[in-house]
Amino acid sequence: MPDNQIKALIFDVFGTVVDWRSSIIREGEALAARKGLDVDWAAFADGWRSLYDPAMARIRDGDRDFVKLDVLHRENLLEMLDRTGITGLTEAEIDDFNYAWHRLDPWPDTVAGLTRLKSKFIIATQSNGNIALMVNMAKRAGLPWDAILGAEVVGHYKPVPAAYTEACDRLGLPPEQVLMTAAHNGDLLAARACGLGTAFVSRPTEYGPNQTKDVRAEHDFDYIADDFEQLADQLGC
Amino acid sequence: MPDNQIKALIFDVFGTVVDWRSSIIREGEALAARKGLDVDWAAFADGWRSLYDPAMARIRDGDRDFVKLDVLHRENLLEMLDRTGITGLTEAEIDDFNYAWHRLDPWPDTVAGLTRLKSKFIIATQSNGNIALMVNMAKRAGLPWDAILGAEVVGHYKPVPAAYTEACDRLGLPPEQVLMTAAHNGDLLAARACGLGTAFVSRPTEYGPNQTKDVRAEHDFDYIADDFEQLADQLGC
Repeated sequence: MPDNQIKALIFDVFGTVVDWRSSIIREGEALAARKGLDVDWAAFADGWRSLYDPAMARIRDGDRDFVKLDVLHRENLLEMLDRTGITGLTEAEIDDFNYAWHRLDPWPDTVAGLTRLKSKFIIATQSNGNIALMVNMAKRAGLPWDAILGAEVVGHYKPVPAAYTEACDRLGLPPEQVLMTAAHNGDLLAARACGLGTAFVSRPTEYGPNQTKDVRAEHDFDYIADDFEQLADQLGC
Repeated sequence: MPDNQIKALIFDVFGTVVDWRSSIIREGEALAARKGLDVDWAAFADGWRSLYDPAMARIRDGDRDFVKLDVLHRENLLEMLDRTGITGLTEAEIDDFNYAWHRLDPWPDTVAGLTRLKSKFIIATQSNGNIALMVNMAKRAGLPWDAILGAEVVGHYKPVPAAYTEACDRLGLPPEQVLMTAAHNGDLLAARACGLGTAFVSRPTEYGPNQTKDVRAEHDFDYIADDFEQLADQLGC
C-alpha cells in the first residue's frame, strides 16, 4: 500500500490506544479503598473484559437491537459484581465504576504518536466504544481525534464488514485510502477483507504479563510497528 | 442557566463558525478564472444557499429518505448551473466545486475562541453538514472539535427536535448540560424547546452587507455575544 494514497487512519481504541486493563485495576483499587473491598482486580478486569465480546455478538448476530457499549458494560458489570460477591454499591457508585471505561489511560507513546499522525492524516476512532465514552476518554487523556466514529455512528459492532465500510463512507473516502490501525490481528484481517489498508501496532502487555494472543503481527499487514511513534516514522510524519 | 452546569457546547457551523458566503464567492471566482466564466458569484452563492433549506425540508417532512448534505448540495449545484447558464464543467469539476463547502473559511475569532472554549467544555459540531464535510473543513481551518456530531450522526436535519435531543444523548448528557451555539434565532429557539441552553453569537454579515435576518438576538437567550472570544469571556474560559 503506497503511503501517498492514505488520507485517513482509523483506530481501534481498547488495547491499541489505551491500556484498559491497568486502568480498570486502578479504578477498582480506588473503589476498594473507598468501600473496604478485598478483590483481585486483575482477575476482575479480565473477567469484565471477557464478557465484552459475547455481549456484542448477540447484536452482531441479530438477536438483539443495537445498544451502546455503556449499556453492555453496565450489564456485564452487574454480572461481575454478582460473580465476585461484591455488594453494597449504590446505583450511583455502579454507574461511576462503569464509567471507568471513560477514564482509561493512554499508552506512553499514544498522545505524541497521534499528534504526529494527525499532522498528515485524518485520525478518527473506529472503536466499539460509544461516542460519549470516546469523547470523555479523549478529553481526559488528551487524544487529538479529528472525528469520533465507531459503533454508535455506523450502527455496527466490529468485526462485521459494515463497521469498516461505513466508517470509510462517513469520511467520504474509498477503503483503499483508509488505514485501519489496531493491536489485534482479527480486527485487521476483517478490515483488509473490506479493502482497507492495515497497520498493526504491538501491545504485548494489553492482557497483562502473560499475554499469548496478539503479541505480534501474524500476517503481512501494510505496516507493522512497535508503537505509534514508530508508525509515524514509517508514514513519514 | 448557571454556567457551572454546562458540560458541552454544540455548534451550528454554516454562518456561525464559518463564513460560507465569502468562501463560496472565492471558490467561484477561482473556478471562473480557470474556466473563463463571467458570473455574479455573490448572487450564485445566495442562490445556492437558498436551495438548502427546501432540500432538507423534504427529508424533515418525510417525503424523502435521509441523504447526506453533500448529495443535496450537488443536486442544488446542478440546479444553479442550469439557472445561471454555466456549461462545460466536467463531472470532476462539478464535484470539486461542490466540495467548496468543505473549504469554507472561519470567521476571524473562530479558532481562538473555540480553542478557549475547548479548554473548559466539550465542543462538538451540531450542523446539518455531513461528517466528511465537517472533518475536511476542520482539518483545513484548524477547528479543534472534540467530536463531529450533526445530521449524519443523529439522522435528522435541524430544526426537528430529535436533531438536538439525539445530539445530547450521543454525548451522554441531559439537555440542560448542553449549550446550543448559533448565529440564528430559529436554531436556538428550537434547541431551547428541547431543554438545551442557548448562546447567540452575532454574525451580521453572514448574508452579505445588506443582511436583515438574524442580525441580532431577538430573544433572551442564556448567552448573547458578539463573537466566540466574547462568549469564552462570558463562560469563564
